[in-house]
Amino acid sequence: MPLVTLLTDFGAADYFVGALKGAILSVNSHAQIVDITHEIVAHDVQAGAFTLLAAYDSFPPGTIHVAVVDPGVGSTRRPLLIATDSYFFVGPDNGLFSYVCERERDVRVYQLTNEKYFRAHVSATFHGRDIFAPIAGALSKGVVPEAFGELVDDYVRLAPLAPVRDGGDDGATAWSATIIHVDRFGNLVTNITRRELAGAEFARGAKLEIGGREISSFRRFYADAAGDGVTDAAGGGADAACELFAIWGSAGFLEIAANRASAAQLLCAERGQPVRLTSLES
Amino acid sequence: MPLVTLLTDFGAADYFVGALKGAILSVNSHAQIVDITHEIVAHDVQAGAFTLLAAYDSFPPGTIHVAVVDPGVGSTRRPLLIATDSYFFVGPDNGLFSYVCERERDVRVYQLTNEKYFRAHVSATFHGRDIFAPIAGALSKGVVPEAFGELVDDYVRLAPLAPVRDGGDDGATAWSATIIHVDRFGNLVTNITRRELAGAEFARGAKLEIGGREISSFRRFYADAAGDGVTDAAGGGADAACELFAIWGSAGFLEIAANRASAAQLLCAERGQPVRLTSLES
Amino acid sequence: MPLVTLLTDFGAADYFVGALKGAILSVNSHAQIVDITHEIVAHDVQAGAFTLLAAYDSFPPGTIHVAVVDPGVGSTRRPLLIATDSYFFVGPDNGLFSYVCERERDVRVYQLTNEKYFRAHVSATFHGRDIFAPIAGALSKGVVPEAFGELVDDYVRLAPLAPVRDGGDDGATAWSATIIHVDRFGNLVTNITRRELAGAEFARGAKLEIGGREISSFRRFYADAAGDGVTDAAGGGADAACELFAIWGSAGFLEIAANRASAAQLLCAERGQPVRLTSLES
Repeated sequence: MPLVTLLTDFGAADYFVGALKGAILSVNSHAQIVDITHEIVAHDVQAGAFTLLAAYDSFPPGTIHVAVVDPGVGSTRRPLLIATDSYFFVGPDNGLFSYVCERERDVRVYQLTNEKYFRAHVSATFHGRDIFAPIAGALSKGVVPEAFGELVDDYVRLAPLAPVRDGGDDGATAWSATIIHVDRFGNLVTNITRRELAGAEFARGAKLEIGGREISSFRRFYADAAGDGVTDAAGGGADAACELFAIWGSAGFLEIAANRASAAQLLCAERGQPVRLTSLES
Repeated sequence: MPLVTLLTDFGAADYFVGALKGAILSVNSHAQIVDITHEIVAHDVQAGAFTLLAAYDSFPPGTIHVAVVDPGVGSTRRPLLIATDSYFFVGPDNGLFSYVCERERDVRVYQLTNEKYFRAHVSATFHGRDIFAPIAGALSKGVVPEAFGELVDDYVRLAPLAPVRDGGDDGATAWSATIIHVDRFGNLVTNITRRELAGAEFARGAKLEIGGREISSFRRFYADAAGDGVTDAAGGGADAACELFAIWGSAGFLEIAANRASAAQLLCAERGQPVRLTSLES
Repeated sequence: MPLVTLLTDFGAADYFVGALKGAILSVNSHAQIVDITHEIVAHDVQAGAFTLLAAYDSFPPGTIHVAVVDPGVGSTRRPLLIATDSYFFVGPDNGLFSYVCERERDVRVYQLTNEKYFRAHVSATFHGRDIFAPIAGALSKGVVPEAFGELVDDYVRLAPLAPVRDGGDDGATAWSATIIHVDRFGNLVTNITRRELAGAEFARGAKLEIGGREISSFRRFYADAAGDGVTDAAGGGADAACELFAIWGSAGFLEIAANRASAAQLLCAERGQPVRLTSLES
């Protein structure tokens, strides 16, 4: 049973998500549809690209990921199908797939031109329902990527996600990084990965700077407190909750967190805010 | 595999949606359940009726649409099954299905009276779980509509959705229309369809009036700007974003929109607000 | 087709839910996944325990319920599989399953220790994806509970949900109860069940006290008004809407409600607030 995931900025309150699902199932009623999220901030392509990156490879090979954050719908922006050695991606050519394309292998990008696979009447305002959904439906029935259009290589790419090396002095290494996501628990996800830093380096003097604050402690898990591995619910809980620390998040990025508190609130921080990483180790 | 869609005002945070799904699957564990939305404003039958109208016919024929916006649950309001030439609808007799009934053909309305198909214990507060879900489950297993109860013809109808012809003078045509939905992007969906107006007529002097503002420009798609079809991200973006225009929305209704901005915010407009359409063409 | 339900505090906007589903489907692509809710208040184990209790037994026997409200993820808190005579439950050992365990029969609790069934790399911050999802996937393929770890009997239990008998005087019976949930409609769900009170007793003088207000009327359904069973939309509607009453909710608990109005707003009440039940009957 072919899997089709959905990631959009449609919200949960409108008819858009229902129409999208119906359009897929109208082509292949055996498609198994799974929601990733419909709560990407409206028109925020970069946020969509991040969330797709963080979720897509939890799914089994062969999964078809439909992603629609599409402020340019109806304009000359192209509709795309991307095939890699493990997955398919269907959606607009606006950078939404750049982060996954950075990570995937054997990336082939097709411009969707074969109108035979589109909805009979294509609106200028809802390509999710009228182009992407029927293409995903056909793909899930086994139609080969080549049937939908020609290969292109000039697809839209966002600026790379990685932090930028930023000199440093006296043998220290420094990186200009960014908050790329704030999750529901208020954890601040940075774009720092193990390529820039191994967690153990905090013990050797690495530190983060954000909004004038310095963060130099590291924890293995959110409830990890100094010493015993679990915060004390009775004494010192308030202090422990307010302490900010760095932690490896589940999507492979370094996060700034606070146990049972929102780091975002404590720091008044938001997505896009700069973070500076300094590592003393040579 | 029979499709069952759900549209409710239950919200996503409660146990209601889970209980509804469980009750369908308890009758037919092979039912394929698809959420349209659970975020209809609480008790807002008209909003539910609109969203169902906008989504239902994206689904393949034979789909069973369960809709529950049901402030009168437990009272004498009747539980209904509606069969048309393409779909089934299950829910309360309070007008929730009027808009789809206006559009569907071969509409037969059954009052659900055969308690054999209800949950063993029917509560007075949750007919979604106790009546509508088990009926949908049985229907998805192939039980015929006649088995659930008798035909009725006095089901509750909301006022028709269409705008009202409103005189006009000097050869002009005027319509009293309404905002029937505000979507997550702030687009204002009116009840004006191609029956009242073809989009091209804006070029010939048609205009909308809402809250003292006049809207006389029309665009084919949201990012459509004067001339080039895509807004310029660099220069003039702010102006372009604030310009209000009319556009054909994907549900077949004329919308008032603003590119990458919320028309609802710009106009302080909300659902129910009157809109006047004047068309100069004779 | 095995059913797997999900109940979490992940919210709908992040990649967490998608990753959880992908991880289940990576083990068993035939698993049928059903969302109960992902909107449990962050880290609120008791709220999760209540919502699971209210929804779980609507599902058919054999259903696997995965619940993840897990502030202690990565710490020494144990991962559990609970098997009963009807269902399976998978999640953290922090009390999330206490209320269902109070109600279920033949409860066997296993500590998940067999890493063969975990994700290849287990993070310290997302056991939902790395432990609970793969275990649920394996379970849905027919792996027996014993394969995942040893039986334990010292699992974490929350304080029992039931109200506490509270003396009373002159032959009256009194109970100290609590608001355990506020639903989207503003209904206040108490922990009072038919064990403490039959609805008919209100006619014989039972009453509730909350925040200095006394509630002594009872209704069978939300729209039930004095006398006719349906509120009068025309006259007296405002009064009827503001009247507070007790009602049996669909999860088997006594609720405080107001027809077409929010009892929570009228009473400025919230979860955790005490309610006193006095029953005159001896």
